[in-house]
Amino acid sequence: MPEFRLDWERTARTGTSEAVLCEPKSVAQIDAIVAHAAELGHRLLLTRLGPRKFSRLAARQTLDYDADSRTAILGGVSAAPSAGRVAIVCGGTSDLAVAREAARTLAFAGESATLLADVGVAGLWRLTERLDEIRRHRVVIAVAGMEGAIFSVLAGLVPCAVVAVPVSVGYGVARGGRTALHAALASCASGIVAVNIDNGFGAAHAALRILGDLPAAN
Amino acid sequence: MPEFRLDWERTARTGTSEAVLCEPKSVAQIDAIVAHAAELGHRLLLTRLGPRKFSRLAARQTLDYDADSRTAILGGVSAAPSAGRVAIVCGGTSDLAVAREAARTLAFAGESATLLADVGVAGLWRLTERLDEIRRHRVVIAVAGMEGAIFSVLAGLVPCAVVAVPVSVGYGVARGGRTALHAALASCASGIVAVNIDNGFGAAHAALRILGDLPAAN
Amino acid sequence: MPEFRLDWERTARTGTSEAVLCEPKSVAQIDAIVAHAAELGHRLLLTRLGPRKFSRLAARQTLDYDADSRTAILGGVSAAPSAGRVAIVCGGTSDLAVAREAARTLAFAGESATLLADVGVAGLWRLTERLDEIRRHRVVIAVAGMEGAIFSVLAGLVPCAVVAVPVSVGYGVARGGRTALHAALASCASGIVAVNIDNGFGAAHAALRILGDLPAAN
Amino acid sequence: MPEFRLDWERTARTGTSEAVLCEPKSVAQIDAIVAHAAELGHRLLLTRLGPRKFSRLAARQTLDYDADSRTAILGGVSAAPSAGRVAIVCGGTSDLAVAREAARTLAFAGESATLLADVGVAGLWRLTERLDEIRRHRVVIAVAGMEGAIFSVLAGLVPCAVVAVPVSVGYGVARGGRTALHAALASCASGIVAVNIDNGFGAAHAALRILGDLPAAN
Amino acid sequence: MPEFRLDWERTARTGTSEAVLCEPKSVAQIDAIVAHAAELGHRLLLTRLGPRKFSRLAARQTLDYDADSRTAILGGVSAAPSAGRVAIVCGGTSDLAVAREAARTLAFAGESATLLADVGVAGLWRLTERLDEIRRHRVVIAVAGMEGAIFSVLAGLVPCAVVAVPVSVGYGVARGGRTALHAALASCASGIVAVNIDNGFGAAHAALRILGDLPAAN
Amino acid sequence: MPEFRLDWERTARTGTSEAVLCEPKSVAQIDAIVAHAAELGHRLLLTRLGPRKFSRLAARQTLDYDADSRTAILGGVSAAPSAGRVAIVCGGTSDLAVAREAARTLAFAGESATLLADVGVAGLWRLTERLDEIRRHRVVIAVAGMEGAIFSVLAGLVPCAVVAVPVSVGYGVARGGRTALHAALASCASGIVAVNIDNGFGAAHAALRILGDLPAAN
Amino acid sequence: MPEFRLDWERTARTGTSEAVLCEPKSVAQIDAIVAHAAELGHRLLLTRLGPRKFSRLAARQTLDYDADSRTAILGGVSAAPSAGRVAIVCGGTSDLAVAREAARTLAFAGESATLLADVGVAGLWRLTERLDEIRRHRVVIAVAGMEGAIFSVLAGLVPCAVVAVPVSVGYGVARGGRTALHAALASCASGIVAVNIDNGFGAAHAALRILGDLPAAN
Amino acid sequence: MPEFRLDWERTARTGTSEAVLCEPKSVAQIDAIVAHAAELGHRLLLTRLGPRKFSRLAARQTLDYDADSRTAILGGVSAAPSAGRVAIVCGGTSDLAVAREAARTLAFAGESATLLADVGVAGLWRLTERLDEIRRHRVVIAVAGMEGAIFSVLAGLVPCAVVAVPVSVGYGVARGGRTALHAALASCASGIVAVNIDNGFGAAHAALRILGDLPAAN
Repeated sequence: MPEFRLDWERTARTGTSEAVLCEPKSVAQIDAIVAHAAELGHRLLLTRLGPRKFSRLAARQTLDYDADSRTAILGGVSAAPSAGRVAIVCGGTSDLAVAREAARTLAFAGESATLLADVGVAGLWRLTERLDEIRRHRVVIAVAGMEGAIFSVLAGLVPCAVVAVPVSVGYGVARGGRTALHAALASCASGIVAVNIDNGFGAAHAALRILGDLPAAN
Repeated sequence: MPEFRLDWERTARTGTSEAVLCEPKSVAQIDAIVAHAAELGHRLLLTRLGPRKFSRLAARQTLDYDADSRTAILGGVSAAPSAGRVAIVCGGTSDLAVAREAARTLAFAGESATLLADVGVAGLWRLTERLDEIRRHRVVIAVAGMEGAIFSVLAGLVPCAVVAVPVSVGYGVARGGRTALHAALASCASGIVAVNIDNGFGAAHAALRILGDLPAAN
Repeated sequence: MPEFRLDWERTARTGTSEAVLCEPKSVAQIDAIVAHAAELGHRLLLTRLGPRKFSRLAARQTLDYDADSRTAILGGVSAAPSAGRVAIVCGGTSDLAVAREAARTLAFAGESATLLADVGVAGLWRLTERLDEIRRHRVVIAVAGMEGAIFSVLAGLVPCAVVAVPVSVGYGVARGGRTALHAALASCASGIVAVNIDNGFGAAHAALRILGDLPAAN
Repeated sequence: MPEFRLDWERTARTGTSEAVLCEPKSVAQIDAIVAHAAELGHRLLLTRLGPRKFSRLAARQTLDYDADSRTAILGGVSAAPSAGRVAIVCGGTSDLAVAREAARTLAFAGESATLLADVGVAGLWRLTERLDEIRRHRVVIAVAGMEGAIFSVLAGLVPCAVVAVPVSVGYGVARGGRTALHAALASCASGIVAVNIDNGFGAAHAALRILGDLPAAN
Repeated sequence: MPEFRLDWERTARTGTSEAVLCEPKSVAQIDAIVAHAAELGHRLLLTRLGPRKFSRLAARQTLDYDADSRTAILGGVSAAPSAGRVAIVCGGTSDLAVAREAARTLAFAGESATLLADVGVAGLWRLTERLDEIRRHRVVIAVAGMEGAIFSVLAGLVPCAVVAVPVSVGYGVARGGRTALHAALASCASGIVAVNIDNGFGAAHAALRILGDLPAAN
Repeated sequence: MPEFRLDWERTARTGTSEAVLCEPKSVAQIDAIVAHAAELGHRLLLTRLGPRKFSRLAARQTLDYDADSRTAILGGVSAAPSAGRVAIVCGGTSDLAVAREAARTLAFAGESATLLADVGVAGLWRLTERLDEIRRHRVVIAVAGMEGAIFSVLAGLVPCAVVAVPVSVGYGVARGGRTALHAALASCASGIVAVNIDNGFGAAHAALRILGDLPAAN
Repeated sequence: MPEFRLDWERTARTGTSEAVLCEPKSVAQIDAIVAHAAELGHRLLLTRLGPRKFSRLAARQTLDYDADSRTAILGGVSAAPSAGRVAIVCGGTSDLAVAREAARTLAFAGESATLLADVGVAGLWRLTERLDEIRRHRVVIAVAGMEGAIFSVLAGLVPCAVVAVPVSVGYGVARGGRTALHAALASCASGIVAVNIDNGFGAAHAALRILGDLPAAN
Repeated sequence: MPEFRLDWERTARTGTSEAVLCEPKSVAQIDAIVAHAAELGHRLLLTRLGPRKFSRLAARQTLDYDADSRTAILGGVSAAPSAGRVAIVCGGTSDLAVAREAARTLAFAGESATLLADVGVAGLWRLTERLDEIRRHRVVIAVAGMEGAIFSVLAGLVPCAVVAVPVSVGYGVARGGRTALHAALASCASGIVAVNIDNGFGAAHAALRILGDLPAAN
């Protein structure tokens, strides 16, 4: 019996395709999965794939790899992406890896997102001068570590769906991202929703569910 | 200076209106707020208002009170609600209070939700026989305590936006609702989003943001 | 041997006088302490003194009691208070009890504070329209529960010393005040300092230490 | 005095033999224990023995080593194993190391288990199409990380004894395996029992206790 | 739509029947469920039903109530119970309520358990003098609060399946039962399995799954 | 769009200048920020910059680097620093790195601090013989790990503003610094304020806010 | 079978006699135990016995009850107690109940302790002026809540065995006593030992073990 | 000013000498401290000194180093040690490093301890056959990780002072040693005291305080 069984019908069922979380998998396991998908002619998204592990993959030539987001794509991104519906806002340069994982996941599903970096709360003007631009999107993915105050500020100012992605960057009480996660959940600005810490991939899938049209994943 | 300043422009700004969380407030404080809203001719939603505190309000005659959801409404629910866009699914009779808080918050904003009770995972047939009905909605608010397995099962089967509301019912490791919250966030079924424990109100506001049309709140 | 020994020299030594935390003490213990202070002609501040316990004190006639802040003062507040140096900002009506404990503690020490209530982040305009007023003070005591986003927003906008007082109001992940406390400590706006959850008394003493002149307590 | 004293009578007393947890031990300590057992003619199971530490053992030639499960066996597995009584079900390729530790521990005790990999909840069909096969076993060892929803789904569908093994794979709130552990304990499907996180060895011993015949370990 | 849907086929499917957890339910909800079961001629077990709530039930005359275990049974216990297969061991008088919940749940399913009370570790002789009696059972349900040392001692001495039920009795670091739960999971005596804190009901269902014959519940 | 936008007006607005937290940033990101600041002629403070990462910076020749505090300064420290207003007290040699981060941050802002090392509580005479010296300062930054008893002892003896910096040095229950943090917050000596664990930078900015004159940062 | 079996040989075996923790027991259970002891002519110590529960005991006339420590003694305290070997030091009036539980437990075992109340760290002179008196004892039981700084200060100044009893008095991060417990365990003053939070009884037994002579308990 | 100030009078004051915790210190810092002590002719104990750091010390030739306990001694152990008063009992080979740190600390102070290894609870006979030997000591230092059941078993059988040292060895819920620590504190066997996790040094100092004679440390 093979060790893995991919769920190729997931997109039809849920509108979000299966992806391969590479962190807990060995190089051999990842290569076997990629070979299997290639054989069947399926596209595939790989996440949490560090540069060192990528460089040891037999399949690395067939993959479109992005080191910043630690993602790889088999079969290419969509030809004609939708755009202007999802904005990704992040508080600091440190949150960029997670923000880009969300962007790549959306791109794989044919959705092109607007990325706004370094829109922090400590200098509120950086956020307020971009507000009109942000408001034009249906979904805002907000990526932040530390105390996550931007989730509340943002949700108090725009009518979009706000998906908070807490980030594990930080030290002391912020270590691991719990403080940012709890800030999103306990916000006095209502209607914020949260995904797991560092889960840019999950936030992108949530955005796809919210947009509500089935992406062209296979 | 008065002790409170309501944010009447919030609906215009964010699509979700301000509400009054009554639990930490005194009877006198609540009465003052209601009187102020009535004077200005504004509608108002009050949440976490237990029967005993309600019965001591001077304003109780002017309010539409619902003991099950512990909510009260000043100015009535909407005349012609939208319907068929939001389903509220809950795992046990114990989750009903939270599910109804979500339903009432939606009703206040002119959105009529479908409520499906006792759709638990221990008897999976109760969920699967309702799947086609659930799939027709754009947003599913899933309300569950204990281990929250229903969040994963549901999100693996439907393409809707899934907003998980963990419930604090439970004992031992489930006390306080953290286990259900973490289950929603760590789910292997991607694209689930979560709100705070017991926050039916917040889930409803998230649904309104996702639906994306401004509700007729004032 | 008596059960208590008050530290009357504390003001001379640290600039902050000893006070009596009444919550864990019996009525008999509190009465004994008040009688002892009265006999020596000392002024005394009592905190966390609920209305029911106050009503059972033999000494209640000699005390200036304030139910909102749950504080009582023996010997009266100062005749000619300093003013305009400390602002107390709080996010919601629910935070008022803690804010008032800070105000009364300052009053006992001869410092009159400016209290700004319901200056929350969900409606940012309530904060920004008071900014010029806040900036004129040397110390801002910021009192907030829930996700405590106001600490970061405030500290990013004013040059004052910012003393954050997290409040235990809230439910789910906000219960007990840890989320607000961690938000203050992990803030991306630098230079915020925090005291214990619900500790309005401690924040006032911190403000007195920051102002740096010995209050006329005895 | 030697540093270790093995408990060779444990099998007679409890039906489960002593094993050597290698992770906290030095190469010298493990070699001394193996030499001692070999001298006495006893069989021995070694767990949590990584490939690097194994390769440094003097005794490595005498051991049957399995890198995937990080186990080694001195004296060989049983000649004529019982079979068909224990099924090991795991949710993802990432859980395989723990599942195999359980399988090897059972094999050491003369019990051959059925291993079903990648039977996750996000694609429920992968579980339901194997249900009849699973039901034929007396004990099901369910191995899962993340949110552990499979424990509830499985126990709601089969009458077998269900031993849950939470796995530490995961990130954010799932890091360390607490979420999966709590899901097993708080399950709304009754009669699930749990062992420690990552404890495939303990789950196998629990299965042996449940089967109730003394294994031929010495 | 009714608020509840009982899962009458559960026994056929899993060997354990559905029960009603009364703690989070209202008197009206419980009465409706009991009336529904009576109408269909089904037997029913109710757990966590305190004396005060029981006395307010309309159905109380039709129920066999046991205040010590806070359980009620509709339709009577089994006529000819199996016996001698399950022992319930508890450390102190304080653990008796949980031990009795397990015993009543077993009785409802036609299994008569042996109850051994006050078999603590601080006086080890109380345990050792009962060892031969304990060993004769196939399953031992061990109920203990505090530090739960009895789980390890017991499992080191008997070959039975050992189901640990941690109890929330205790103060300081033992409050809530986490210390006893962790002791069961981290035990150096292998093969112990655990259920949730205070979950006597779940331990009984685990025992039924382990015994492996379908109880006569309906 | 560039990945970072520095907030050069922060000093004018809050009296504390923006700094670059290097730990979560790549070498390329840090070099880009330094180049940008150099181009604009701005001074810049870099914190949490380990020796290895520093040695890989293209800009390392233009920076004044201090390995002990892991800080680097672009544009030099102030010419004529204020002095005698801030004392930094630390409990053990292990706390020195954090103490020095505070000292360097103050130096960057033109404030020269007095550093008192190894003033621990276990040998109280080391503290008491320095008390007169400490008392002459307006702000005391107290840096301590372990149980943080020095915060209470110090605040009970001096009238200065006391800013506690808990340190993550320690093992067992002290690991990560939570015990020291909680000791500062729960102190029976009133008026202590705390910053995040290991946050020497934040303590320095708090001191600058307390001193209340705008430092010459740009 | 009776529900309880007392361990009358414990004193001979361990030097500390069994006692009855009344909090989790019913009035009927306590009365049965007292009657049993009285019948056998054994002395007995009852702890955590609140005034209301005491007043409902049938046996209350035969007991020497002390409401402050919530203890009762059957059979009287020792006639000729040893003295001058144990000092009990506590930080505030709030810690007195726990301190007195320790004193009564010692008295029951024939040891008379010196009680020093309100010896806090915020006013260090209250401790230092009693140091010579404290030093004359072999064991110091230190009882403190809040941040527990007194444990470190005391252990840095005296050569006695120091048994720390953390107290659950406190709010915010001090609630429940964990901060004081961790302070005792993480102290930079070496050789402190700790018992569970609020466990005055356990501290007294530890003192008896340290003194090392068998108390005359039966 | 030097960075460190050793407390040479501590032995005279507290009966326990200062030691150097090497883990958080640099090689240069340790060398400076050793040189200073050597110059003054003082003996010195160094703890938590790993082999790699030791090999880089300039002073390594003058030190008596023991890799197993990670301790080094300057100036030699005592010539004529006391013996037979302290027993060190440990549960597994994994606990030996901590047990030996205790033994070396005692040896430095002139106390020779009896070390009993692998006396675990899973095989109770290993403990019971050593009981008479253990009982002859005044102090038992019990070192255990995992669930720490041995603390309770031991304290229920011997009258000695029992100092529990929890060990951080373990995985899952036992990781970090909290489970063993809480087991010691919550034990149903009264009179156990605990030190911090892995703190063999502290347990030895506690034993010295209990023995009560001043060791010949300088």
